Amino acid sequence: MIYFDNSATTRTEASVLDTYRAVNEQYFGNPSSLHQLGERSRQLLDQSRKQIAELMGVNKEEIVFTSGGTEGDNFAIKGTAMAKKGYGRHMITSITEHPAVLKSMEQLESIGWDVTYLSVDKKGKINLNELKTAIRKDTVLVSLMAVNNETGSLQPLKEVSEVLEDHPSIHFHVDAVQALGKVDLDLNESRIDMAVFSGHKFHAPKGTGFMYVRKGRKLSPLLSGGGQESGLRNGTENVPGNVALAKALRLLLKNKKATNDRLSSMKQSLLNYFSELEKVTVFSPEESAPHIISFGIKNSRGEVLVHALEKEGIYISTTSACSSRKNKSVHSIKEMGHSKEQAASAVRISLSNMNTKDEVEIFKKTFNKVYERLKAIE
Amino acid sequence: MIYFDNSATTRTEASVLDTYRAVNEQYFGNPSSLHQLGERSRQLLDQSRKQIAELMGVNKEEIVFTSGGTEGDNFAIKGTAMAKKGYGRHMITSITEHPAVLKSMEQLESIGWDVTYLSVDKKGKINLNELKTAIRKDTVLVSLMAVNNETGSLQPLKEVSEVLEDHPSIHFHVDAVQALGKVDLDLNESRIDMAVFSGHKFHAPKGTGFMYVRKGRKLSPLLSGGGQESGLRNGTENVPGNVALAKALRLLLKNKKATNDRLSSMKQSLLNYFSELEKVTVFSPEESAPHIISFGIKNSRGEVLVHALEKEGIYISTTSACSSRKNKSVHSIKEMGHSKEQAASAVRISLSNMNTKDEVEIFKKTFNKVYERLKAIE
Repeated sequence: MIYFDNSATTRTEASVLDTYRAVNEQYFGNPSSLHQLGERSRQLLDQSRKQIAELMGVNKEEIVFTSGGTEGDNFAIKGTAMAKKGYGRHMITSITEHPAVLKSMEQLESIGWDVTYLSVDKKGKINLNELKTAIRKDTVLVSLMAVNNETGSLQPLKEVSEVLEDHPSIHFHVDAVQALGKVDLDLNESRIDMAVFSGHKFHAPKGTGFMYVRKGRKLSPLLSGGGQESGLRNGTENVPGNVALAKALRLLLKNKKATNDRLSSMKQSLLNYFSELEKVTVFSPEESAPHIISFGIKNSRGEVLVHALEKEGIYISTTSACSSRKNKSVHSIKEMGHSKEQAASAVRISLSNMNTKDEVEIFKKTFNKVYERLKAIE
Repeated sequence: MIYFDNSATTRTEASVLDTYRAVNEQYFGNPSSLHQLGERSRQLLDQSRKQIAELMGVNKEEIVFTSGGTEGDNFAIKGTAMAKKGYGRHMITSITEHPAVLKSMEQLESIGWDVTYLSVDKKGKINLNELKTAIRKDTVLVSLMAVNNETGSLQPLKEVSEVLEDHPSIHFHVDAVQALGKVDLDLNESRIDMAVFSGHKFHAPKGTGFMYVRKGRKLSPLLSGGGQESGLRNGTENVPGNVALAKALRLLLKNKKATNDRLSSMKQSLLNYFSELEKVTVFSPEESAPHIISFGIKNSRGEVLVHALEKEGIYISTTSACSSRKNKSVHSIKEMGHSKEQAASAVRISLSNMNTKDEVEIFKKTFNKVYERLKAIE
């Protein structure tokens, strides 16, 4: 089996599951309980928060544990709306964001908020002048993804940060779910106020995640309650999940440079291979994340290719998992200027640090067979 | 070690952790992915939903997986607020609810909602006439807990259901976190529209939970996104967690009658024992859940008793875990008419189906020693 659908979800690392179990057995107390079982859990949780903060180059008070990327995006957007509604009711995002962002924005629009959706160019990037023009006196949030989940396109976060330097009261939120460990995100040095990360995208347990919230930023909780996570994210802490998450993050960022070089070279090898196939179009722009390749075979629908490859034990996706079944695709590829037919042909390979060069070679051999069959379709 | 703090959190069952691991290893695909790995996960998730629905006596379309009790309460309250704001902006709850409910209500008040907080009597129950008087034309939600987390007090849900029969457009939400498996909740026959349950309170993994949402009830998502859980709770599904949750629920409800008889008899044995100790006051009313006893030693602060017992390997809580460290106690005991000093003396024993009668006997012997020391305090 070759699993190339890591942007949909990853297989939780065996050693991370070992940690998860050990914590469940040895630290099962509620961190809010006054007794020693609670205290032990609280200390372990704090240690994991500290580890994550160090790995991310931020303060531990700036790390908030969540249940995943969707919660994080909803919290950043709706939490800003609640906290800053007195300052204005306008937000800016892009047309190719994840549904967690777009649907949150839609919900705010339904209660009277104004949202500007920036367009993207052929590379999937927003236009900085369009951003500048969109900023209003009542703008309270700019929300952009670091790496597009369908194509691997990168948003110009540094340039956006520069634009926002002149607007210190605007929250800058970054959905960084697909970027972690793959693309540099200097949270400490940047203008980014909030960044969202999801555990199951990097071999941590499903239902875990964390968020960066810059110190001093005004944010109302999305989940109100007992005062956990400095009152920002309430509910009994998932200590085993969060400790396992910290471990998975350590494993992800260990040898980060070497891993990314390897991913880039695997991606390049696939791109070289695809460039020789006449009927294959690559949709991912040249400058894109090292682990995502979006491409299609002319006149062949994405799902046909997905099913043809899975028969050979190779797992890839049509665009994003979130769009696959719901018929509510984000259509980043269309927004980048490709035709409806091209978008319908699109599939996505998404690699992780657990994939190997051998798998890439097997993929090519298998793809040859499938391609020969599918390219004949007119 | 004797763990009598099960209303704070429980130890995840070893066999439930086995299931969790097996699902992680064999069903790690994203249920939204089109390929067979996704399809297998989707089917397994569906099967767990069906099992839970059958155990709860409702339809599988009425079960929504969440990250726990706090998310469930927030979703029920804020989701109702978003969905029904056109009908009115008034909600009713009680003064002794869990912070997940009270803080959600406070947040709504901060954006212009009106909330009526019903008082409770000596038994911790609301007054039905007070409820009737509180209902207005613009009331959209009544939110009450089935079992109080601090005292085990029961709210008269059947009588409230009868009152609400005449108000079909009001959502009736029940925080049933402490009730599951301990108190009968006939969701199908009752007027309850939403009920919230938390996994870690019944030996399921932390960070899991589920919710009952009656078919046809209007609710906006709190977590917007990719369309999961019929669009009500978005975000990649925690398949291993949810399958493990379904297993823990099966274990909880297996021999439910016998388990509850055993819990009741353990509780009665403790109550008989306490009744012989002159300086002990029991705060839990006679009619209360079979697993919670709130009590105190006169003039001795709750935390002193908690720490004295933990030295002997017995773990109990001061009131609720959520209040222990946050200094924002819900003070159900004070609201029931006890003095500030009595409330400060309160501790909570909370049993689970994993506790034994032997543990109760050891507890009594140990408590004797501690009591002899603490009762001397004037």
